[in-house]
Amino acid sequence: MLEAETITAAILVIGDEILSGRTKDKNIGYIAEYLTNLGIDLREARVVPDVEEEVVAAINALRKRYDYLFTTGGIGPTHDDITADCVARALDVGIDQDERAIAMMRERYKPEELTEARLRMARIPLGAELIENPISRAPGFMIGNVITMAGVPSIMQAMLDNVAPKLRTGVRVEVETIDAHGLPEGIYGTELAKLDARHPQVSIGSYPSFTGAGFRNQIVVRGRERGAIDAAADEIRKLLAQMTGDGAPG
Amino acid sequence: MLEAETITAAILVIGDEILSGRTKDKNIGYIAEYLTNLGIDLREARVVPDVEEEVVAAINALRKRYDYLFTTGGIGPTHDDITADCVARALDVGIDQDERAIAMMRERYKPEELTEARLRMARIPLGAELIENPISRAPGFMIGNVITMAGVPSIMQAMLDNVAPKLRTGVRVEVETIDAHGLPEGIYGTELAKLDARHPQVSIGSYPSFTGAGFRNQIVVRGRERGAIDAAADEIRKLLAQMTGDGAPG
Repeated sequence: MLEAETITAAILVIGDEILSGRTKDKNIGYIAEYLTNLGIDLREARVVPDVEEEVVAAINALRKRYDYLFTTGGIGPTHDDITADCVARALDVGIDQDERAIAMMRERYKPEELTEARLRMARIPLGAELIENPISRAPGFMIGNVITMAGVPSIMQAMLDNVAPKLRTGVRVEVETIDAHGLPEGIYGTELAKLDARHPQVSIGSYPSFTGAGFRNQIVVRGRERGAIDAAADEIRKLLAQMTGDGAPG
Repeated sequence: MLEAETITAAILVIGDEILSGRTKDKNIGYIAEYLTNLGIDLREARVVPDVEEEVVAAINALRKRYDYLFTTGGIGPTHDDITADCVARALDVGIDQDERAIAMMRERYKPEELTEARLRMARIPLGAELIENPISRAPGFMIGNVITMAGVPSIMQAMLDNVAPKLRTGVRVEVETIDAHGLPEGIYGTELAKLDARHPQVSIGSYPSFTGAGFRNQIVVRGRERGAIDAAADEIRKLLAQMTGDGAPG
């Protein structure tokens, strides 16, 4: 399903603060939606702590398996910001202070403000392209298929806008959402499974959400061919019309 | 750091809808904070699609490495709900309709409402303990060190409350948060790194957040011994007091 002409991606979120629950990640959901709109299939996301061995292992596992790997977090000026060094180690390239990065940072900092700590943010793996950061200047970077961005959502989002034009994209997935109008999944589930098996060119999902007042189910048809999506969606609408339910979840 | 007497955990979020960006995950952040409060260290989180091979591989990678694995999503009545079967396959145990689960579901459904699809929700790996679901009745389960819960946040949260008393917990991590009061990371970063190296019994992080009005930095000291936390926090306060800055980020 959905395998033709696809470009795949993974996200690696780096940071103890996400795993302790102190900071709630907002980047996975944002990047997921963004990549879907570009026609890139996000296939996996991981969150790992600020531990070099863990970060390097995750970078290597994900960059080898998917067309792109997006990392967020760990590129600031403090000792727990180890992402650039981890990317360099994973790709087995050197890392040093990058004059282009320092030039970007000079747009913001006076020479005497470029402290040793801030210059950590100019450490860029050798051979990387920089990704501009219009908010706080210290750049992200792209090397091979690894795209390294900040963890602060507003900065990450600006970097993503700046790197997006450089990415290969596939045929965009189109989505049709059908409201089950109170019909429970437990009523339509078996027939929907048969219908799904008859429509291998699309992916069909059923998603309950609970509002307190009860469940609301939506059936989502995703695919890259409009005709195949329409055919499946029409059958689903007919199926739902044939059925009645009590509005209960599941 | 923080290795003594720790109980570790991972989270596996299962669902195409998270990776497409259609649904924004709220479970990782909730579980992360919950486990921290219990004294369990969350070490990794992953999001994978509704693809059996992917789910099984992730379950095995994570359950073998951490004391507990919490899964969310994929235990409803439709064809894309494959988590219970994946757990059974990963643990190499059988799976069948569970009479205890059916009894729970009878509290809600009349006999004629127990459709084939709904009975999918009673498929439980052999040997699992059930986790009650006060909202929609179909239970989660715990088998070995794998805890399988619903993806709908309100149901997941109720299941987590029900399974929590059964978990082994470690010494709870205590946290001290110190506001940098406008001092930029780029000013205190180098000295903080030295301070961190002198205090191996605690973990020190520096976290910027961007409000639009500017950056606000907080330094967080985490540890399991109050004396070690206090000693590091006192030094950090003295360090910050010695420094002045312009309030700029990074």
